[in-house]
Amino acid sequence: MKWTELSKNDLLKLRGDAQKDYADCVSKRLHLDMSRGKPGREQLDLSNEMLSVLNDPAQLIIDGVETRNYGELGGIRQCRALFADILGVKTEEVFAAGNSSLSLMYDTIAKAYTHGLLHSEKPWSKLNKVKFLCPSPGYDRHFAISESFGMELIAVGMNEQGPDMDAVEELIKDEAVKGMWCVPKYSNPEGIIYGDETVRRIACLKPAAKDFIVMWDNAYCVHEFEGDFVPFKDILTECRNAGNPDMVFEFASTSKLTFPGAGVACFACSEANMAYMKKLIGVQAISYDKINQLRHVLFLKNKQGVLEHAKKHAKLLKPKFDAVLSALDEHIAPLGIAAYHRPKGGYFISLNTLPGCAKRTYKLMKDAGVVMTEAGATFPYGIDPKDQNLRIAPTLPPLSELYSAMEALCICIKLAALEKLLKF
Amino acid sequence: MKWTELSKNDLLKLRGDAQKDYADCVSKRLHLDMSRGKPGREQLDLSNEMLSVLNDPAQLIIDGVETRNYGELGGIRQCRALFADILGVKTEEVFAAGNSSLSLMYDTIAKAYTHGLLHSEKPWSKLNKVKFLCPSPGYDRHFAISESFGMELIAVGMNEQGPDMDAVEELIKDEAVKGMWCVPKYSNPEGIIYGDETVRRIACLKPAAKDFIVMWDNAYCVHEFEGDFVPFKDILTECRNAGNPDMVFEFASTSKLTFPGAGVACFACSEANMAYMKKLIGVQAISYDKINQLRHVLFLKNKQGVLEHAKKHAKLLKPKFDAVLSALDEHIAPLGIAAYHRPKGGYFISLNTLPGCAKRTYKLMKDAGVVMTEAGATFPYGIDPKDQNLRIAPTLPPLSELYSAMEALCICIKLAALEKLLKF
Repeated sequence: MKWTELSKNDLLKLRGDAQKDYADCVSKRLHLDMSRGKPGREQLDLSNEMLSVLNDPAQLIIDGVETRNYGELGGIRQCRALFADILGVKTEEVFAAGNSSLSLMYDTIAKAYTHGLLHSEKPWSKLNKVKFLCPSPGYDRHFAISESFGMELIAVGMNEQGPDMDAVEELIKDEAVKGMWCVPKYSNPEGIIYGDETVRRIACLKPAAKDFIVMWDNAYCVHEFEGDFVPFKDILTECRNAGNPDMVFEFASTSKLTFPGAGVACFACSEANMAYMKKLIGVQAISYDKINQLRHVLFLKNKQGVLEHAKKHAKLLKPKFDAVLSALDEHIAPLGIAAYHRPKGGYFISLNTLPGCAKRTYKLMKDAGVVMTEAGATFPYGIDPKDQNLRIAPTLPPLSELYSAMEALCICIKLAALEKLLKF
Repeated sequence: MKWTELSKNDLLKLRGDAQKDYADCVSKRLHLDMSRGKPGREQLDLSNEMLSVLNDPAQLIIDGVETRNYGELGGIRQCRALFADILGVKTEEVFAAGNSSLSLMYDTIAKAYTHGLLHSEKPWSKLNKVKFLCPSPGYDRHFAISESFGMELIAVGMNEQGPDMDAVEELIKDEAVKGMWCVPKYSNPEGIIYGDETVRRIACLKPAAKDFIVMWDNAYCVHEFEGDFVPFKDILTECRNAGNPDMVFEFASTSKLTFPGAGVACFACSEANMAYMKKLIGVQAISYDKINQLRHVLFLKNKQGVLEHAKKHAKLLKPKFDAVLSALDEHIAPLGIAAYHRPKGGYFISLNTLPGCAKRTYKLMKDAGVVMTEAGATFPYGIDPKDQNLRIAPTLPPLSELYSAMEALCICIKLAALEKLLKF
């Protein structure tokens, strides 16, 4: 029976039980981390061969390029080709850089502020107001970049097909609205794949701002943990076909394929954007780490190699996501006190508690020794208007710890829900 | 006999000879590059062990830090300690990052523009005018960063002790003057080591701008190619003692010790600056490549290891600098048509032709198939007011090619000088 339909007496009794369960849980002195989308140790071990795949100096010169020395600002061709293959774009549309796609995103926004984008009339720092669309729940680090630059963050709802495009199409009529964050495949945190129609509508946007930018963070482009690789529309082609060739920058990395701290990141964009950005980046850097790029090419080889490697990750990840879902299915779903998504890829499960219970659940978890992504983090300014979204990141803890963490989470969701229900 | 004292007839005869020599030179169809401070292949080979020094997964966790995963924004402690040792600063004052110190410098200036520095009243992008001091001849990439952000570049003269401090002390009374580029040891391109008194005067500056920044690019801190390591004052301590603890950011890297494209770069600054910058950088990056940092720690070990490794580079570099100097000593010095420095470290020899001859010499060299750093590049806006400075970068070509290049250079210097002298 749904708890929302129970009498006060029943709820009081249940709260007593839940308080006892919570006390037991606290007494276990857990020390677990489910806060970030960090791969677990077994996943890291999948790429240990990276350490020895490039150990012969003769390998270091490739197509005449000396990977040890300065040069090749946009990265070695083979690495750009690998990303192009994965993303379905052209090699010339790819810039292969260092270890962090977040840094590439930050730098893109930073350059919009200091120099302006290709179609900017002036640098954004010279404007009175810059607004940015933040489909929510979304990725806190995206929102933090926008906030750091003093933008006004505008939350846009998410539905099963991605961002609420009716809202987006309305909002972009304001020329202060300069762009939009997107995680199009296995969105962070909901694990939604944007529908074809949503992608089409994004590519067809006619924003008032001539330098509107779609920040297309394809972080989980090959990150299925259940089922086969799901082909996905290439946004560069979509935008080009819609007459918006320069409206999008796409980002990706190997962070969750090889080593999160020592992978290779890239951006992809129109050739006009590429020429413009290379001119700016050429002042910032002589070149990125080409040896590590080469290491990745030798290890991952090509798209087929990437997909095979992704399958090994999937094998480790699937049981973790299953553990989360079965715990919720068994202990929470029947009570009607939370809703959640069932993603087939990505790194998160997004859970909505009863309104007004997310912060409390987070706090209870923290006090019980389990760190989660802070409640509210998935919304602009860290403010979840309904205080109900929690991001579950099950990848880092070993499976045994994850069971304990989920046991704790179910208890905390229940206790927070009961406290809330008893207030009415 | 000095050419400036010769009769027109003598000069005409010499020009005929020089034209013939130049024609011979062109007919050799050289294809050489002396444009940038790139290490040569034998230098790169000195660090090939880097490829295998870290190949056991058990090495990857150090002091409990999992180098493969996200985390440790400021770099692993061991790598920060290594740089601290080299620079004579504290480990807590070091931020170890990716492969490029140029990027760290760019990012520091970029953050001054977008967010302001620790003591800024507002971001520099909100100011009408920002001026920056550029001791010249200096490093073109430094000046390019300043120019890219729209600063007004102010050339400051260089003497044997470093920048002309009388001029600097006067210029900083203008609160629009926000900072100063310095390459304090084996300055680019003159190879000058700043004198103790110059360093002291820099540390003691009392600029009108509260957020004045000394960009202390210690690129050649251990890069002696002749003689032993020359100890050098630690600018952080100097500034702290002078009551200016937050006025300086120091930069260094292993680019010219291990692999230029795949080294580790760092900045060092006061702990207050560090806390401020980490807050900003934390939005830009989760962490830099810790595996490559660890690789460097394992390979270079400590300051002693660095100095020993630097000696190996010195052994390869000394004959190249000797080749340049002997050619100039033999063919140019007696004629009184150029002056040059005799550095004991760094990557360049700075040569001053007769006034008005640098561009012409550069052009003659280019047409003869030898690319040099463009004439003027060592001055703000690429404009050498006397058109006389040329930067010779002898490290990349093998010795045999360098002899050819220097033969060409001597011919070109002579021909350009004769053309000039005959105009009067």
